[in-house]
Amino acid sequence: MKTPLYTPLIQSLPATVPFVGPEQSERDRGAPFAARLGANENGFGPVPAALAAMKTGVDDVWKYGDSTSFDLRTALAAVHGCSIDNIIVGEGIDGLLGLLVRLVIAPGDRVVTSAGAYPTFNYHVSAFGGEIVTVPYSDDYEDPARLFSRAADVGAKLVYLANPDNPMGTWHSGADIAAALNQLPDGCLLILDEAYVECAPAGTAAPISCDDHRVIRMRTFSKAYGMAGLRIGYALGQAALIQSFDKIRNHFGVNRLAQVAAVAAVGDAEGLALRLSQIQTARNQIAQVARNNGLRPLDSATNFVTIDCGQDGTFARAVLAELVERGCFVRMPFVAPQDRCIRVSCGPEAEVEVFATCLPQALAQVRASADG
Amino acid sequence: MKTPLYTPLIQSLPATVPFVGPEQSERDRGAPFAARLGANENGFGPVPAALAAMKTGVDDVWKYGDSTSFDLRTALAAVHGCSIDNIIVGEGIDGLLGLLVRLVIAPGDRVVTSAGAYPTFNYHVSAFGGEIVTVPYSDDYEDPARLFSRAADVGAKLVYLANPDNPMGTWHSGADIAAALNQLPDGCLLILDEAYVECAPAGTAAPISCDDHRVIRMRTFSKAYGMAGLRIGYALGQAALIQSFDKIRNHFGVNRLAQVAAVAAVGDAEGLALRLSQIQTARNQIAQVARNNGLRPLDSATNFVTIDCGQDGTFARAVLAELVERGCFVRMPFVAPQDRCIRVSCGPEAEVEVFATCLPQALAQVRASADG
Repeated sequence: MKTPLYTPLIQSLPATVPFVGPEQSERDRGAPFAARLGANENGFGPVPAALAAMKTGVDDVWKYGDSTSFDLRTALAAVHGCSIDNIIVGEGIDGLLGLLVRLVIAPGDRVVTSAGAYPTFNYHVSAFGGEIVTVPYSDDYEDPARLFSRAADVGAKLVYLANPDNPMGTWHSGADIAAALNQLPDGCLLILDEAYVECAPAGTAAPISCDDHRVIRMRTFSKAYGMAGLRIGYALGQAALIQSFDKIRNHFGVNRLAQVAAVAAVGDAEGLALRLSQIQTARNQIAQVARNNGLRPLDSATNFVTIDCGQDGTFARAVLAELVERGCFVRMPFVAPQDRCIRVSCGPEAEVEVFATCLPQALAQVRASADG
Repeated sequence: MKTPLYTPLIQSLPATVPFVGPEQSERDRGAPFAARLGANENGFGPVPAALAAMKTGVDDVWKYGDSTSFDLRTALAAVHGCSIDNIIVGEGIDGLLGLLVRLVIAPGDRVVTSAGAYPTFNYHVSAFGGEIVTVPYSDDYEDPARLFSRAADVGAKLVYLANPDNPMGTWHSGADIAAALNQLPDGCLLILDEAYVECAPAGTAAPISCDDHRVIRMRTFSKAYGMAGLRIGYALGQAALIQSFDKIRNHFGVNRLAQVAAVAAVGDAEGLALRLSQIQTARNQIAQVARNNGLRPLDSATNFVTIDCGQDGTFARAVLAELVERGCFVRMPFVAPQDRCIRVSCGPEAEVEVFATCLPQALAQVRASADG
């Protein structure tokens, strides 16, 4: 008898993808987007020092990257006041989430996350046979107390919490997150995804020691630093946990240019300040466009603005479809009641102008269809 | 009672790394290498078209890469005369091997490979709880008939075979590999690693249809194309197998610059021919250095030359240590009797000169120590 090729777990999995990328959407619609404001990328570009480092570094890409990302971990350790043994560098937060889930989750193990939070985490959990338990957002905020309480109820091994949150852009003070940790059940690890934290007000980064065994924090160069296409992020955690990644990771998987660019980026405080200022300007512009159209922009501590379209998910999905149809790539939350919103990433003024032009047309079209 | 954080499988794994990278060795010895000839990189650099494409592409790294690598798969499908559905692009062959093992190997499942073949494959198998069964090389050649026969004996789900082989540099004709497939047991998948095939004589690439369900072939831009630091490779196989990667892969994991550079590289036949010519010249130079020192270079169809040091593994390891001590980074096979050899990657003449200078010193030192 022929053995099935795939493992039982793999056989049980559907062929799903967490996100359809904008290039695929462009191919599907047969035309490029005029505005690329859907993937929370940084349309202002990589911070200047990273750009310069890459241009010099391309000649060296014949060399494998340093498998230990030593220079980058050294630079990051200085920033975070920790040891390099508290830092693991990986292929973006997505890659690190996949490895972390693999370290912890066997079939039947439970995780807790908010209903409608980052789908790529859920994708990894499902792919390792884990069971996803959700709690609702509280007024568009992730709710640490409720997440941790639910984790205790179901014996979860992992809790996922993004601060600031994606897709809503809301946030808690870091002190509140740290205080809530007392309610995290013993033996449960909090994944604190701080992908957007550079864009947030001072005090949003949680004041948690890298040696705290209850938490692993995730950071990325994809957002404020403008290097999404390079695929590099890192996690901060207790040394024993960080070292465990070495059992399973693709040791030479972090590309050399990403390492070189990230080292330069860490040193480019001025470049980061410039990008944050540009992001702030774009946030204000996007929020104003929303208000000009009678919609409510949520306060945001990220590089995007989530806009309450004022009706239900069906309405927001229709508005989104009309925007995309007009060449304005944006996305939206997947789950009710957050799916009454659309999510617009910060970008250069010309792209925000495209959004400003398309939004009233989209709203008019959807309202006309509803009336018709 | 506190739940153990890690899965039982993870708890059972040692903290091993398949390779120590040259940067780590440089830090360990406190000095840079004068010659970097140990990792089978391409010291002649990326093919020119890839270099040009990267220099233009860095401005765009704020965008995530296309999650489907559509442009690259389209270009590769034309080269291989197959559909894009036969091609999966990943973070180098290492990344693809990890995914493939995860698709197929559950704890206790068996794989067959040659004793001393690519350790990163074994690393992935062990990390998913697989059992590694080995067969010896036959006169420094991997032995397809023996591999396939052993796979039948032990009910293996995967067989790994590199053609040309690393670390020996030996090769079989593609026709011989294709013919041997008849002995592959039903239900067992052959991983045919063709990382070095561009460096090999015509006829080495196996004439196997991409739709053949018995085989998945691996290719990379790390070797002949000189892009190891970018982390990009691909696999060719039956569409159903290729599609299964979508269940588990990090969809946005292939960085944007790597995709852009690889598309350019595929179109740069002239650049590839130049690199192959440079590699051929270096192969001849390295072989001549070996002969000048009374050692036997093995014929190579790769971008490295494996040199028989004429004694046992202890002797070769001592020679290797002396070379590294003198700033000449080379590596060697791990397993007897192949470990009587050292392995020298092709590189620019200045680096081969370093090897030419260091080798007689290293041999003299080791022989003097043995006499002493």
